[in-house]
Amino acid sequence: MPETTAQDDDRKSKKALRKLQRETEKLKIHETGDDQKIPVVSTLTCNGVLETTEAYGLLPLHQSQFTQGPKYTELRELSEESFIDQHVWVRGRLHRSRMKGKLCFFILRLQDYRVQNVLSVSEKAPKEMLAFVSSISKESVIDVYGRVVKSPVLIEGCNPGNIEIHCEKVFVVSSALATLPLQIEDAMRPEDDETTLSRVNQDTRLDNRCIDLRTPVNQAIYRVEAGVVRFFMEYLTKAGFVNIHTPKMISAASEGGANVFKVSYFSGSAYLAQSPQLYKQMAIAADFEKVFTIGAVFRAEDSNTHRHLTEFVGLDLEMAFKNHYHEVVDLIADMFVNMFKGLQREFQTEIQTICQQYHSEPFEFLEPTLRLQYKEGIQLLQDAGWEIGELDDLSTPAEKFLGKLVKEKYHTDFYILDKFPLDIRAFYTMPHPTDKNYSNSYDFFMRGEEIMSGAQRIHDPVLLTERAKHHGVDVEKIKAYIDAFRYGCPPHAGGGIDCLVITS
Amino acid sequence: MPETTAQDDDRKSKKALRKLQRETEKLKIHETGDDQKIPVVSTLTCNGVLETTEAYGLLPLHQSQFTQGPKYTELRELSEESFIDQHVWVRGRLHRSRMKGKLCFFILRLQDYRVQNVLSVSEKAPKEMLAFVSSISKESVIDVYGRVVKSPVLIEGCNPGNIEIHCEKVFVVSSALATLPLQIEDAMRPEDDETTLSRVNQDTRLDNRCIDLRTPVNQAIYRVEAGVVRFFMEYLTKAGFVNIHTPKMISAASEGGANVFKVSYFSGSAYLAQSPQLYKQMAIAADFEKVFTIGAVFRAEDSNTHRHLTEFVGLDLEMAFKNHYHEVVDLIADMFVNMFKGLQREFQTEIQTICQQYHSEPFEFLEPTLRLQYKEGIQLLQDAGWEIGELDDLSTPAEKFLGKLVKEKYHTDFYILDKFPLDIRAFYTMPHPTDKNYSNSYDFFMRGEEIMSGAQRIHDPVLLTERAKHHGVDVEKIKAYIDAFRYGCPPHAGGGIDCLVITS
Repeated sequence: MPETTAQDDDRKSKKALRKLQRETEKLKIHETGDDQKIPVVSTLTCNGVLETTEAYGLLPLHQSQFTQGPKYTELRELSEESFIDQHVWVRGRLHRSRMKGKLCFFILRLQDYRVQNVLSVSEKAPKEMLAFVSSISKESVIDVYGRVVKSPVLIEGCNPGNIEIHCEKVFVVSSALATLPLQIEDAMRPEDDETTLSRVNQDTRLDNRCIDLRTPVNQAIYRVEAGVVRFFMEYLTKAGFVNIHTPKMISAASEGGANVFKVSYFSGSAYLAQSPQLYKQMAIAADFEKVFTIGAVFRAEDSNTHRHLTEFVGLDLEMAFKNHYHEVVDLIADMFVNMFKGLQREFQTEIQTICQQYHSEPFEFLEPTLRLQYKEGIQLLQDAGWEIGELDDLSTPAEKFLGKLVKEKYHTDFYILDKFPLDIRAFYTMPHPTDKNYSNSYDFFMRGEEIMSGAQRIHDPVLLTERAKHHGVDVEKIKAYIDAFRYGCPPHAGGGIDCLVITS
Repeated sequence: MPETTAQDDDRKSKKALRKLQRETEKLKIHETGDDQKIPVVSTLTCNGVLETTEAYGLLPLHQSQFTQGPKYTELRELSEESFIDQHVWVRGRLHRSRMKGKLCFFILRLQDYRVQNVLSVSEKAPKEMLAFVSSISKESVIDVYGRVVKSPVLIEGCNPGNIEIHCEKVFVVSSALATLPLQIEDAMRPEDDETTLSRVNQDTRLDNRCIDLRTPVNQAIYRVEAGVVRFFMEYLTKAGFVNIHTPKMISAASEGGANVFKVSYFSGSAYLAQSPQLYKQMAIAADFEKVFTIGAVFRAEDSNTHRHLTEFVGLDLEMAFKNHYHEVVDLIADMFVNMFKGLQREFQTEIQTICQQYHSEPFEFLEPTLRLQYKEGIQLLQDAGWEIGELDDLSTPAEKFLGKLVKEKYHTDFYILDKFPLDIRAFYTMPHPTDKNYSNSYDFFMRGEEIMSGAQRIHDPVLLTERAKHHGVDVEKIKAYIDAFRYGCPPHAGGGIDCLVITS
């Protein structure tokens, strides 16, 4: 893939190159203090191609000096038969190393892959080389050149564990500080590991997020998360939805006004949108018919629970329907089932990696998805002795308990609760057609926690205004939203998944 | 797809239904004032299925009263042979109507589809029905039942234009106000139309975005935009990139401090991220290897140009490379070419719709993508008499002019300018290995405008600190960012497309 364009580099005179070498030596890319005896590798160029006669050392700062270099093999590819007995260049992190007489063992790591390397004293590998390699600080990015050899035994803790590399060259590309704020191996330990080996607490993890994210489990979580987004988008795109982007800075604290962040906007003020709700509905009034949107939402909630974040990524959808809002509910349920199956199909490795560190029971779901009436949910709770009124909202413990009851009775971790009481839903929720206490609204639950909330929305400006006033919403502030329904709007419903956390 | 669950609706007694009908009549979903003589359709239920004996009227507010209803056909499907002579139910907007003796013609519109309907006085369609239909305000959402008939001539302005519907029933689902702030037909007119027919100016369009977005051209633009995002994601996902989400609210005005929005964050302050730059690089330091992110970015730039928005959607990527940052440049170029081809392949109709309203020349690009050195670009400009210094930044007019020169010389609307002067790039840009005036940075141009800016980044904390200080950046404020490189980081490069505007 990398095309060779030597135009710029050809011009380099040998003089310039020598100057560069002196400069990069001066830069001292390593900071550990005690490694100043280790030579920076002197590099030579032959038509812009990196060449070195040395077998080990620190490489000068990588400034793309050379248009060509070795062809690298990825750690994940090394289990392929074709590499056995071949020489390869690999790049990764020094996971750990240890000396054992005239041998130095070290593990090269990248993401979920860990490969054992062996360096033995020989004519080409003097004792100094072993000393150098064993002195490289953990987490440094290094290049290794060596021969791939089949291992007679499965190497514990390695992946692939059936091979090792017999090293001939080792270079440091980017040094890590000698003292790490946390050890990757500690951070990788299963939650329910009963040994007395040390763990890393959450504060240390979050304070050193860039290191903690290198663990296989975090790599896997991010891949699964990206998978969830992809399945969401693919399913909806196939179903004719349009991906839109809704504004985050808005002119008025529109959704009730509580829990909203205020922004200084030049000489005035703006607010951060608490959801794309109003905008995705306006897209329906604008004839998009089916839309989804993925983006940051902001809630000024000063609570420290795993259900309250001031910023997170929401996955939202909205859809015009013809006869009944269950057309939308059914589509959402099918989308989730498709997502679960996709994860099971394409992310088996990641799910196993996650389960090794964080234990969880296999996820059960039914087809078609179980849909209970809110009334039925309350009945289940009451029958089990839980004190709750017919029109009361579900507290988090009640949700959890109901999840347990539903799982016992129906053997599913995923279900829908339909027709919530009107009073506990947002002002734009369409009332039930015949029972004034209820509404055309629903929540989706996974393992006893709400993962998506949705409803048929009011598409009539008169009723919408009335309901907004009833909820104490200042209708002047949502004028643009209400006005969107004055020029005709098809009946529509939708929902939002509010459970993706942010990266950093 | 819509599953019938009559559980909830079965319970409705006839009494409750009659009550509902009285209530929906009271709701008066229409607001035009003069339509009070038009009867609200009385609906009957038969096991939750909508039935009505009337042929026209206003439907009661759609509250999903009925679990079943007619099977609807989409306007876009009507050109299919199988519908000829069949009866269909369709839903859309009343685009326009006119009476002509005992006939009423009206066009039903949805997105880019417009279908002619004909209603003629008959036993089943009394004069009152025609009067009713011709009184429906434009943009109202209506349901039509009728027979699809092949048209002997192509009906101008319709799509599909080879059929029409001979109507038997017409119901209003959602009324529009009688007076529209803009006429869709005016908003649909080509920019270079030389007639004296009225147009809609930009302010009116933006003030009534929900109506303006209903035009075929805006529908097409949003579909193309969603396509761009999809091609971006698909290409990168296939190439092993992970989709991440970076924080929007950050604790310090990190990228230089200018043009940043301040947020009141409980008792303190936060800032809105001006780009995902620092975070996507930190993801590289965290071993993600290849990442992309799509999300809102915020710039407190008080300028009114089409290149300056306070909020827009950025498409960003970052990637570790092995030998040379051109590995990344080549991948990005290939990604764009893939996107262009995808648009040509899958969005031909939309592109035609857009070009009908906004004229543009066919887009030319080369394979492989043309890559010029910044120096060469300056030389081209100077040779054409443009006054510009070797290390000067390109102004917008200079960019435009250079685009013209490149197009003339190389016949491409898409090219890369490589190795920009160091001083005009962000502090984290990797300096050129041998020429201190230049850097390992690049811009991608389309039709003479920069669409993506990128560079190899500095992955060494010492040099990064030095360059940040040189640019006057407070290194304390970006401590977490600089620290991310203290524990080893592979060489990496990336870029960002900053050209997607927001929905509303």
